Order: sequence, then structure tokens, then C-alpha cells
Amino acid sequence: MSVSLGEIAVRFGCELRGDPGTRIDGVAALAAAHEHAISFLASSRYRRTLANTHAAAVILEAAAVADCPTACLVCQNPYATYARVAAWLHPPPPVAPGVHPSAIIDPTAQIDPSACIGALAVIGAGALIGARALIGPHCILAPGASIGEDVRLVARVTLGERVTLGARTLVHPGAVLGADGFGFAPDRGAWVKVPQLGGLRIGADVEIGANTTIDRGAIGDTIIEEGVKLDNQIQIGHNCRIGAHSVLAACVGISGSVTLGRHCMVGGAVGISGHLSICDEAVITGLSLVSHSITRPGVYSSGIPIEEAGVWRRIVGRLKRIDAMAARLAAVERKTNLRGGAARSEEDE
Amino acid sequence: MSVSLGEIAVRFGCELRGDPGTRIDGVAALAAAHEHAISFLASSRYRRTLANTHAAAVILEAAAVADCPTACLVCQNPYATYARVAAWLHPPPPVAPGVHPSAIIDPTAQIDPSACIGALAVIGAGALIGARALIGPHCILAPGASIGEDVRLVARVTLGERVTLGARTLVHPGAVLGADGFGFAPDRGAWVKVPQLGGLRIGADVEIGANTTIDRGAIGDTIIEEGVKLDNQIQIGHNCRIGAHSVLAACVGISGSVTLGRHCMVGGAVGISGHLSICDEAVITGLSLVSHSITRPGVYSSGIPIEEAGVWRRIVGRLKRIDAMAARLAAVERKTNLRGGAARSEEDE
Amino acid sequence: MSVSLGEIAVRFGCELRGDPGTRIDGVAALAAAHEHAISFLASSRYRRTLANTHAAAVILEAAAVADCPTACLVCQNPYATYARVAAWLHPPPPVAPGVHPSAIIDPTAQIDPSACIGALAVIGAGALIGARALIGPHCILAPGASIGEDVRLVARVTLGERVTLGARTLVHPGAVLGADGFGFAPDRGAWVKVPQLGGLRIGADVEIGANTTIDRGAIGDTIIEEGVKLDNQIQIGHNCRIGAHSVLAACVGISGSVTLGRHCMVGGAVGISGHLSICDEAVITGLSLVSHSITRPGVYSSGIPIEEAGVWRRIVGRLKRIDAMAARLAAVERKTNLRGGAARSEEDE
Repeated sequence: MSVSLGEIAVRFGCELRGDPGTRIDGVAALAAAHEHAISFLASSRYRRTLANTHAAAVILEAAAVADCPTACLVCQNPYATYARVAAWLHPPPPVAPGVHPSAIIDPTAQIDPSACIGALAVIGAGALIGARALIGPHCILAPGASIGEDVRLVARVTLGERVTLGARTLVHPGAVLGADGFGFAPDRGAWVKVPQLGGLRIGADVEIGANTTIDRGAIGDTIIEEGVKLDNQIQIGHNCRIGAHSVLAACVGISGSVTLGRHCMVGGAVGISGHLSICDEAVITGLSLVSHSITRPGVYSSGIPIEEAGVWRRIVGRLKRIDAMAARLAAVERKTNLRGGAARSEEDE
Repeated sequence: MSVSLGEIAVRFGCELRGDPGTRIDGVAALAAAHEHAISFLASSRYRRTLANTHAAAVILEAAAVADCPTACLVCQNPYATYARVAAWLHPPPPVAPGVHPSAIIDPTAQIDPSACIGALAVIGAGALIGARALIGPHCILAPGASIGEDVRLVARVTLGERVTLGARTLVHPGAVLGADGFGFAPDRGAWVKVPQLGGLRIGADVEIGANTTIDRGAIGDTIIEEGVKLDNQIQIGHNCRIGAHSVLAACVGISGSVTLGRHCMVGGAVGISGHLSICDEAVITGLSLVSHSITRPGVYSSGIPIEEAGVWRRIVGRLKRIDAMAARLAAVERKTNLRGGAARSEEDE
Repeated sequence: MSVSLGEIAVRFGCELRGDPGTRIDGVAALAAAHEHAISFLASSRYRRTLANTHAAAVILEAAAVADCPTACLVCQNPYATYARVAAWLHPPPPVAPGVHPSAIIDPTAQIDPSACIGALAVIGAGALIGARALIGPHCILAPGASIGEDVRLVARVTLGERVTLGARTLVHPGAVLGADGFGFAPDRGAWVKVPQLGGLRIGADVEIGANTTIDRGAIGDTIIEEGVKLDNQIQIGHNCRIGAHSVLAACVGISGSVTLGRHCMVGGAVGISGHLSICDEAVITGLSLVSHSITRPGVYSSGIPIEEAGVWRRIVGRLKRIDAMAARLAAVERKTNLRGGAARSEEDE
């Protein structure tokens, strides 16, 4: 696809500095861009790279114009504008309507004629598949799945029973949506399975990464609201609700019955204990343990950055004896008359 | 399915307070229950919800009877009783005997006529499949698999070579059971693969979550004993033995050659280093690192709950200097004559 | 396969102590070995087991010869030699050339006649499949995949677009290689998807574990260099480069644009933040958080081993108040005249 710079400027509402007739045939990183590529500057730390770019044009904000050696498209949010330009220049292959002859479709499934069902897909009883939806090769839809318009299950996505996907939702390979939640009742030394009878409702414009798992509810439903973005290898337990437009990095694990607010950001490998409530706009940095609810927006952490291993062992040794250290400090305070009743009560709690 | 309250009371050994003729057609949560649903109270923290329930009846323990506004079924373990009632009222769809025409079955496989082989399953040479077993769509059984009676592989389960599953074991989609363990010998800067020649033996009444992986043994077998419950996204390395009735939450990672005892409970995302031995009845809370063996039953932890990020950075900064802090404390103790030979030797170790 | 001890000694360059005519038919662990099995001693902690072995012969280093009750094969690296002997005695089943009739192959794919395409595999347009490659059952290759000689995709491996695999690379079931990276631009409270246009290049002699995911690049490529060994359930983000012969244990998560050096060793469940650079020969122990680049080879940690839960809660309580403790210590130092200007400035920073 080849377009003119002027066409891009008009379509995406940018101010153009440069020749509108310049031809653009794709996007590239600043350092790798050739003379027909468009690039972007989203962070000031790449300004040096900008100075040496061979891109035909760069999408950037007004403050960076002076540093740009080539044509530029000026806008308020260069990264988002870049994303839209790139999607326009490099569209995914169109969905070819039709059902692959190797797919196995229950006769009661209702498939929109504009949808595409890939090779070896298995579509269960009563499934509803919306317009232009793509059910990639090797996908499995258990009975009762409901798939919105323009949904894309790239390949090998498994939907358990009672799963609903909103429009334009995109799911990557290996994701398992709507498996049984993990519920067992202890009984005389063994575990009795608690039937998992709820569903899983996923909103519109959600993205779900490769090998991510989301369990269906125990009695009610697990809910992923619109615009949520889930990276790879995430686990979300039964009865959770993930608020709209929240974004979760890879390897996050969320126990059952957690309510995560809207517009939250959860770093990689964070663990959230069961039955907690996290407010809107909470940010949790990577490898943190959330074991209490969060009621105020803000940034929360409990990860500890690495040290050289010998130093770290010594630190951990001290940490393990911190209680004795505190007692020794209190003794010194008493000896030096630095410790009154208030301090003591704090210490002796 | 519609049954009478009296029938439930008799079948599950509960004491009924209320009209035995009341019709029940399903289970529901206390807050959502309608007039033909049965619910349960398993924790006293839901007593307020109990007071306002519209359920036809509630399964609860004797101490809660006075707080129940409706009929009740009194028993010693309400949650386990609820689980059994729910399983009876909402049974999984029956296994329809037969082999789907799209399945690919090695002629040497022996499949019980009452078993069900789903669409596009691939069954390798010499596989044995027991009575009423369900091999769901897209499952792969490498040569030599042995599947007990009433096993259910929901869909897309992969069994590597030399895998045995005991009766009634339930496996969710995406699980990979019996892949090669991770074994390499270092040799002049590269790694030589150590052939993984063992098997994987899984007992009866085990449940294995979506996308969980269990490697087969290097020479001997990896063993999962009866009644073990594994959540989603768990990794168990080669040559491990997981003791009967232990329960592991999602995202746990267990290195090779670990022996975990019976009746253990392992929280989410716990990591266990290789070659350790964990005694029976150990409980390990979420996000903990187990790097030494555990010899006494008890509860163990090393996870740290989140703080506001700025506060946490300050805490980590202090922690990283705790060694210097200890030295300063020792100096103060010496100056104030609070420090004798014994304390010093402890400190200077 | 049955061979003589002498044949093994010659083929693998060992010094034989014992009868070269002894027949060997397989490998076994020291404790389980029978009279026709060969075993090995790779660690001195198994010397007691060595003393009681019934193996026909043991592969070991010269220093252990005196302790060996049976024939031995002496070499410098017994574990690597064992690995090679085991691979020779227990070779994987040969790759049977041909395409399974149930596989679905795009007519533009080029498949070497010596390659094996398994049941229900789906091979996209333009795929190149090299000599003796094994594409196991249920594998999916998106358009443009390039598969080197002797590659083995065991079963159910998914390759996204623009994925290249070098010779002899081995991939286990459930791996998803080349899915979209996780890239979104924030825009007025929602997230705009950044198209993921790069590829994934994997070198020769790489091994990739079950359910591991590696994303393709955003603009450039994600790169896994030759000889890298990845365990199960690992996540590697877009644009990463993993240096040759590095080995990563299970459940590691690496954010986008990380450069990991050559010959690194990364323990289980380590998390590495985005855009970092880790030098060659870095070792990171399990459950550590890497949030800054590493510039010097060495061993790095931040995992904390478990304590009994009550003790741990008390330690965490103290840790959370360590800042106040430091202030109290400083006050005592001032009172006892132990604190000068230099120390104060350090403390008050």
C-alpha cells in the first residue's frame, strides 16, 4: 500500500511540515527507516536517533519539530497516531467469508455468512457467530458460545461453556476462556469438587494474549469489561470482574472473586489474593503481592530489585533477624533515655 | 431437574427445617437465589446476605439456623454438602459412547466401547482407554497412554509418551502432561540435551487445570498421587512426586525432583527449588520462595504485601543498607556498654 | 538396542575399567540400575548410592573410580557423556517422511520430501519446511514460516506469521511462537493497538518448553540465538534478544525489548522489566526481580526464602517500619556522639 504524506496528514488530523506528495509505503523504527517509511518519536529519549533518521517523515509532537531532520506530522499523541497510521498501512489480511470444509460445525450453530471459520475448528451446539468474525484454525467453541461482530480468534483458542465475547475482541493462540474455576470443599482429608456453573462474559474491544486462561464463574459469571488488554500467560480466577480499559502485563495471576477497577495497570507477574477489591486507576508494579484491597488510586509495589547474590544473602540474613535488631535498638534507647512511654508502646505492640 | 427438598435432605443426610415438598430446580448464590433455588452458607461473613436471601432453602450448619429466614438443610460441612447437591442437580452432560469420525486412531489402540473420543482427537499406538472415559475434541495421546475409567480430558489436552491417568481424573484444556523435562549437561559453553526417558503417572481423582504442564521423568517417573488438585498454569518439573490430596493454586512452579507431601496446600505463584522435600500438611502462602526443605507441618511464607510505591522505595532503600544499620547499632551498643561478648559474636558472624 | 561396553568406550572417548564385552541395553539411575544398564555419577553427593549400585557400568570422573563397585567409563564430564550415551541408546523414533492425509497444506508451501507432517497439522502459504523436519500432530504454521533441517515440533505448536526456526530446534507442545506483542498507545482513557509487524527468528539447536510463549517484534524482530534452552511456561516479550546458549528455567517472564546476553542462566519465575540489557554470563536466581540493567557477570538475587508464617509476619511488620527504625538509630547516635557530619548526610539523603 502506497499513500502520500498529505493523505496521511488529512486522514489522521496531523499538521504536516514537508512535501505532501512524498510517497509512504510503510512504517519503520527511526533507526531502520528508509526513504519511503514513516516513523514516530514517542519519547524524548530517542531524540538522538531522531537526528539521524532516514525516514521520509516522522510523527511527533510540536516540541520535537525543531529536532527533526526530515518531514514531520505534528500531533498531540504521536504514539497513538502512529498506531493508527500503522494499522491503516499494514491492515491484517481480510476475513474471507466461509467455513473451511474440515471444520466441524454443530447443525444448531448460527454462523453469519460473512464470518470465517478456519480449518479444523470445532463449533458446538447453539453457538452464535457474528458478522465478519474470524474463528481461526483449530479453535474450539463449546456449546453456547456467543461471538460478537469482528471478533478474531487467531488460532487454537478454546472456549468453554457459556462464554460470550463482545465485538472486535481479539484472542491469541492457546488462550483458554471459560474453563472450570478452582473450587473444592475440604471433607475428611479429601476435596469435593464444587461444580462450576457460571459463565464468562467478555466485553468489546478486549485483547487476550497467548496461553492466557480465564475461568468461568462458580455460580455467577466472570466478567471482563470492554477495552481490557491482557498480555500472555495471565491467569484470572472464577467470579473476577476486571474493569474497563484496565491493562495487565504478562504472567499476572488473579485469584477468584477479585474485583479490579477501571483503568488499572498491573505489572508483570503480580499476584492478587482472592476476594479483594482494587479501586479504579490503581497501578501495581511488577512482581508485587496484593493481599489487601486497595481503596485509593495510586502506585503500589512490593517487588525488590536484585543485588549481587552474596550481598543479598547478607541482607536477607539481617532481615530475618530484624526483630532482634529492633529489640536491641529499644534497649539502647532506654539506656540513653531516648525512649518514652509512647515510643515504647509502639515498639511493644 | 426438579426435586423436592425432602429428597435432598434424605439423599445427602441433612436435617431439614422446612417443608419437604418444596421444589428445587437448581443452586444459586445467597444474594441471587430465586424461590426454587437452593443456596448455602459456608462462612459466617455472609450472615447478612443470609438474612436477606430469597432462596427456597439454605444449606448451613446448626449454629446458623437461627439466622436463616427460610427453610434450611442442616449439616456439619455445608460447603461440601452444597458441592454434592450442586453436582447432583447440575450433572455434566453424559458421555456419549463412540468415536467421532474425524478422530485419528492408531489401530493398536484399545478403546472401551463405552468411551467417547471427540472430534479431531489423535490417539497413538498402544493407547488404552477405559470405560466411560471422555477424550474431548483436539486431544492428543502420544503412544502408550493409559487412561482410567471415567477420566475426562475436556478438550485439547496433550499427553506425551508414557503417561498414565487414574480413574475419574479430570483435565482441562491446554494442559500438557508428559513433555520432556528440562535437563541439559553443560559442555564447553553449550548444553547437551539429557534424554528424558521416564514417564508420568497420575493417580485417581486428580484435577488438572488449563494450560498446566507436568513433565515426565528423566529416568524414573514423575508421580502425581490420588486426589491432588492442580489449578491453571502450574508447572511441575521432572521426577517430582506430589503427595495425595495436596492442592496447588494457579501459577505455582515446582522445579525438578521435588517431593511434596500429602495434604499440602500451596498458594498461587509459589516457587519451589529443585531436589527439596516438603513434609505432609505443609501450607505455603502465595508468592513464597521455598529454597530449603520443610520438615515440620505448619504455615510458611515469604511474600511481602504491597505498599504505596514511594514508601516502598524508601523501605527497599533502607533494607539494602540494613547491614550498615546493624553495624551502627552495634557501635552504639558498645558505646553505651550494652554489648557483651555473646552479642558481639552473634553480630560478627 | 544392545551394545558392548567397549563400543561405548570407543565411541564416546572414555577410559574403560572393566570387561569390554559386557552387554548394555539401556541407561538407569544408580539406585535402580540392573545388570545390563549403564549409569552415571555427576555429583559427589551420590557417592553412597554409587557404592551400592547394581549397574553394569558407571560413567564417572577419575576421582570417583576408587568408590565404584563395578565397571566404569572414566571421562572428564560424566553428565554430558551420559547424555550422549543415553541419546545413542534411546534415540527418538525416526521421522517417517510424508504428509499425513489429514494435514491441511497450502499449495504454496514447500515441504522437503524427507520431512514428516503429522495428523491435522495446518501449514500456511509460503511455508518452507526443511529436510527431516518433524511437524507433529495439530501444529499450526501461519503463512511464511521457515523451518530448518531436523527441526522437531513435537505436537500442537503454533507459529504466528514471520517465524523462522533454525536447524535441529526442538519445540514442545503448547508453545506459541510469534503471537502479537503487547503494545498499546494510551489515548483518552482507552488503548489503541499498535500493530505488531515484526517477526521472530529462532536460531539452531534451541529447545523451547511446553506452553512457552514468545512474541514477534513490533517493527523489528524478536531474536532467540543458537543453543538457547527455554523451559516450560516462559514468556518472552516482543523485540527481545536472548543471547546464545543462555538457559532459562520455567515460568520466567521477560518484558519487551530486553537484551539478555550469551551464556546467561535465569532461575525459575524471574521477572525482567522492559528495555533492560543483561550482560553475558549473568546468573539470576529464582523469583528475582530484575528492574535495572546488569553490566557485570555474576550471580544476582532478590528472592527471600520462606519462614514460619507468624515469624514472617513479624519480620514484614518490622520491615515496613524500617524507616522509623533508622531515624531512631540516628537519634541514639546523636545522643551518644557517635554520629558525625558524614554519617548524617548519608542517613538524611
